[in-house]
Amino acid sequence: MRHLIDFGDMTREEWDALSARTGAILDRPEDFLEVCRGKVCASLFYEPSTRTNFSFQTAMLRLGGTVFGFADPKSSSMAKGESLKDTVKMVSSYADVIVMRTPWEGAAKAASLYSHVPVINAGDGGHMHPTQTIADLTTMERLRGGVDGLTIGVCGDLKNGRTVHSLIKAMEKFRGVRFYLISPRELALPEYMKAFLRQQRIPHLEVTGLEAVIPQLDVLYMTRIQRERFVDPLEYERCRGVYILTRDKLRRAKENLLVMHPLPRVDEIHVDVDDDPRAVYFQQARYGMFARMALLSDLANQPRWDRTEPVEIGSAPVCHNPNCITQTEWYLPPLTRRLEGKTCCAFCDKELT
Amino acid sequence: MRHLIDFGDMTREEWDALSARTGAILDRPEDFLEVCRGKVCASLFYEPSTRTNFSFQTAMLRLGGTVFGFADPKSSSMAKGESLKDTVKMVSSYADVIVMRTPWEGAAKAASLYSHVPVINAGDGGHMHPTQTIADLTTMERLRGGVDGLTIGVCGDLKNGRTVHSLIKAMEKFRGVRFYLISPRELALPEYMKAFLRQQRIPHLEVTGLEAVIPQLDVLYMTRIQRERFVDPLEYERCRGVYILTRDKLRRAKENLLVMHPLPRVDEIHVDVDDDPRAVYFQQARYGMFARMALLSDLANQPRWDRTEPVEIGSAPVCHNPNCITQTEWYLPPLTRRLEGKTCCAFCDKELT
Amino acid sequence: MRHLIDFGDMTREEWDALSARTGAILDRPEDFLEVCRGKVCASLFYEPSTRTNFSFQTAMLRLGGTVFGFADPKSSSMAKGESLKDTVKMVSSYADVIVMRTPWEGAAKAASLYSHVPVINAGDGGHMHPTQTIADLTTMERLRGGVDGLTIGVCGDLKNGRTVHSLIKAMEKFRGVRFYLISPRELALPEYMKAFLRQQRIPHLEVTGLEAVIPQLDVLYMTRIQRERFVDPLEYERCRGVYILTRDKLRRAKENLLVMHPLPRVDEIHVDVDDDPRAVYFQQARYGMFARMALLSDLANQPRWDRTEPVEIGSAPVCHNPNCITQTEWYLPPLTRRLEGKTCCAFCDKELT
Repeated sequence: MRHLIDFGDMTREEWDALSARTGAILDRPEDFLEVCRGKVCASLFYEPSTRTNFSFQTAMLRLGGTVFGFADPKSSSMAKGESLKDTVKMVSSYADVIVMRTPWEGAAKAASLYSHVPVINAGDGGHMHPTQTIADLTTMERLRGGVDGLTIGVCGDLKNGRTVHSLIKAMEKFRGVRFYLISPRELALPEYMKAFLRQQRIPHLEVTGLEAVIPQLDVLYMTRIQRERFVDPLEYERCRGVYILTRDKLRRAKENLLVMHPLPRVDEIHVDVDDDPRAVYFQQARYGMFARMALLSDLANQPRWDRTEPVEIGSAPVCHNPNCITQTEWYLPPLTRRLEGKTCCAFCDKELT
Repeated sequence: MRHLIDFGDMTREEWDALSARTGAILDRPEDFLEVCRGKVCASLFYEPSTRTNFSFQTAMLRLGGTVFGFADPKSSSMAKGESLKDTVKMVSSYADVIVMRTPWEGAAKAASLYSHVPVINAGDGGHMHPTQTIADLTTMERLRGGVDGLTIGVCGDLKNGRTVHSLIKAMEKFRGVRFYLISPRELALPEYMKAFLRQQRIPHLEVTGLEAVIPQLDVLYMTRIQRERFVDPLEYERCRGVYILTRDKLRRAKENLLVMHPLPRVDEIHVDVDDDPRAVYFQQARYGMFARMALLSDLANQPRWDRTEPVEIGSAPVCHNPNCITQTEWYLPPLTRRLEGKTCCAFCDKELT
Repeated sequence: MRHLIDFGDMTREEWDALSARTGAILDRPEDFLEVCRGKVCASLFYEPSTRTNFSFQTAMLRLGGTVFGFADPKSSSMAKGESLKDTVKMVSSYADVIVMRTPWEGAAKAASLYSHVPVINAGDGGHMHPTQTIADLTTMERLRGGVDGLTIGVCGDLKNGRTVHSLIKAMEKFRGVRFYLISPRELALPEYMKAFLRQQRIPHLEVTGLEAVIPQLDVLYMTRIQRERFVDPLEYERCRGVYILTRDKLRRAKENLLVMHPLPRVDEIHVDVDDDPRAVYFQQARYGMFARMALLSDLANQPRWDRTEPVEIGSAPVCHNPNCITQTEWYLPPLTRRLEGKTCCAFCDKELT
């Protein structure tokens, strides 16, 4: 059974196939109206994420499939008391595919061990959100003809931004990409991410100003800077204007620049940018829906596994990450995997110590 | 792009076309099972309104379309933080039509400026609720063969009743209608509504008793009297029995009278009236669903606007209505319109001062 | 109009027909993809019950039907203020079938008096939950070829378990069944249920240990023992291990035993049992969905009753059960019925005193 837990699990060939399928849907959506006919998607949102939820729901509906589930754990009796395993066993008795969002790292991976149907990770805490990356890459492919060779500026909170980290990691599949890392020093890209860029020989330059580098960029990927991230509030006030994109700052940008944003924005992109044809952040949301259609049409049509493999029963977590799913689901097997030469938890990917 | 924001925006010809389409659906619902196939409706209820919500949802489903959205702002991450513009941009990236209920006056109008798809106003605060009026008129058309020439008694709280005001205003499109305005003096129709009736030369008579006028009526439109509306609680107690409809009071009514109510009722219509064939308030709910099917089948099949027009960016509200959408969405353009010789806010229709 | 309020209302012939239809769906689900096309199901959950709710929703969707409703009373404006009658009148104006879960005993019966469409009881307080029983019986039929002649152990809290009581009562329709009643003395089957077994001449034996009787069983139906049910907490601690099913205790069981559970479980079945082929509690959930498909495909395709029969108007409850729906819905008729020689409330079945 193929699931989608981590974008990194996908090969370049698999990505190209998915991207081609997205293109086919965009070109002739009417050919796909029945692709998931009779298929039912469970949408399990253990934390609210209206945007991702709506995108998956409409993707499934546009393929002729249907959706049930919950948007908020509080309205579900499943959130309390029942183990994740039992919930997944039950839901996969009813559904043909599971889309799952949780605050716990590794939860989608854990679910995939017990599910009779494919599991799609719609975000597992601070860990992974592969379909956001897929939406981002699809936008670049469709509007720039491909990702290879692009010069990408990532701007804002590069220290904490999961979206940016995933996008950078995805570049191991592409060629000739270069990065401008635009952030205040306090919110610079973490060392392990820079090590990744060096190891992959991806050219990159750290800068603290946005305006000077704008003319070089093919893509400007904006993210939010949260006041709470700053130790010194004065530093925040000093910084904020620098990283707000305005129509004025766009003057010297390339004519075919793509201004992207994972949304929601607060004020890091001024509304006067919205009507500029280079502002593609709302189109990016729409491409995300089409990419999710491609994904669902592929995964949801696998044959159901009526018998799942027996899974080893654990007794206590081997991982020390307090947000890891193994902390609360004691029966999970003590799986590990090798990542960049280190032994890591196979659920949350944190190094075992 | 045609939206439905205000019933007053519709011409008599447009109403007749909508009404004819409703009739066609009622006569042969099986012909409409696929009319919205492949179309997805966003149902955005920023305040709970189960009845209206269910009516729109089932209307869309009966046309072969599908629905997503939220029924309660608290379960949506969209309610907090994000601007209405960004929400609409995002949702209209996923949907083919938006049905929207908000506590803010003018919100549906504001949404229509930014949407890539048609917007239907399902109630914007105390301002407009056009599909309730459509449901009311459809009931009269279907059960009495037309609205022209009817004698209509409106009974209850005529001062605050949005439903009644909308119904009266709708009569500018019809001929030969006359009104009995039945209410306690404290809850009489406001002066500006009476001015409207005079200006339109619609005959009307204010009375404080229900029983005496019942024999004249073709339609009796009941509404709720809320205790809180009375300054003097004793006055409320004295009044209440007068405006409660009972089987007994119906004795002298015409045989083809229509007893209507926008629902929910509390006790202003006694349950002993329910089995009288003249009690059509539950049928009225069903006609509302069919009228919404007619509306959706028309609006949702318009081609999508991938590029919307640039919209002027405002900087501060010009309107002083504290419930107007312009109070919280600062970027809305300072639009005005002329209404009955006055300059009004183009969102909430309140006079600018 | 045929409803499903109480499993006891169904004849053996009706059960056999339903069971045959379930079998047909299981064998050729593709033949049923359109059986409820164009039909809309209202799913009214006045208390959360995610499992039952999901099962009904997916059943309807797999028949080509659609679903609307609420999963939680708090997000519905219907929960407050409006009478059950008015809610049912309104919802049955929009829907083709109503699935209803409430904390009030007799509510589904009450709804059926006013509905224009069939009502299915998805649980009415401590009273009835007929589709759980249907799911249980379907599991036995499909996996053991029939219910007649089975030796069934029911284990856990036999005093309070509604599921177990319903299953036992259902046995009046079958032949040759025998029961082992396995529970601590404090939680033994109530006297009136034992009277029922005697009257039906169903052989049964009360035991306090699980291990000794396991080898005799064709079906072991496990239920949860709640700590709160014990007067003496020490007694609870002493008891608990006895009634926990483990792989070890299963060693001497028959090879074709069925281990069943209504779910959710807490710890009464150890996870090391899950991979044993005799553990069928997750399959039981899936059979429940197919049985609900059979039920919906039958009931939802009845012609709508546009006119309902006039219903007598009551004035005060004749029943003294504080959880009976007649306590809050004063207008309900004072209906009674004869049950085992006693005059009972026709809504909640409690004896009138």
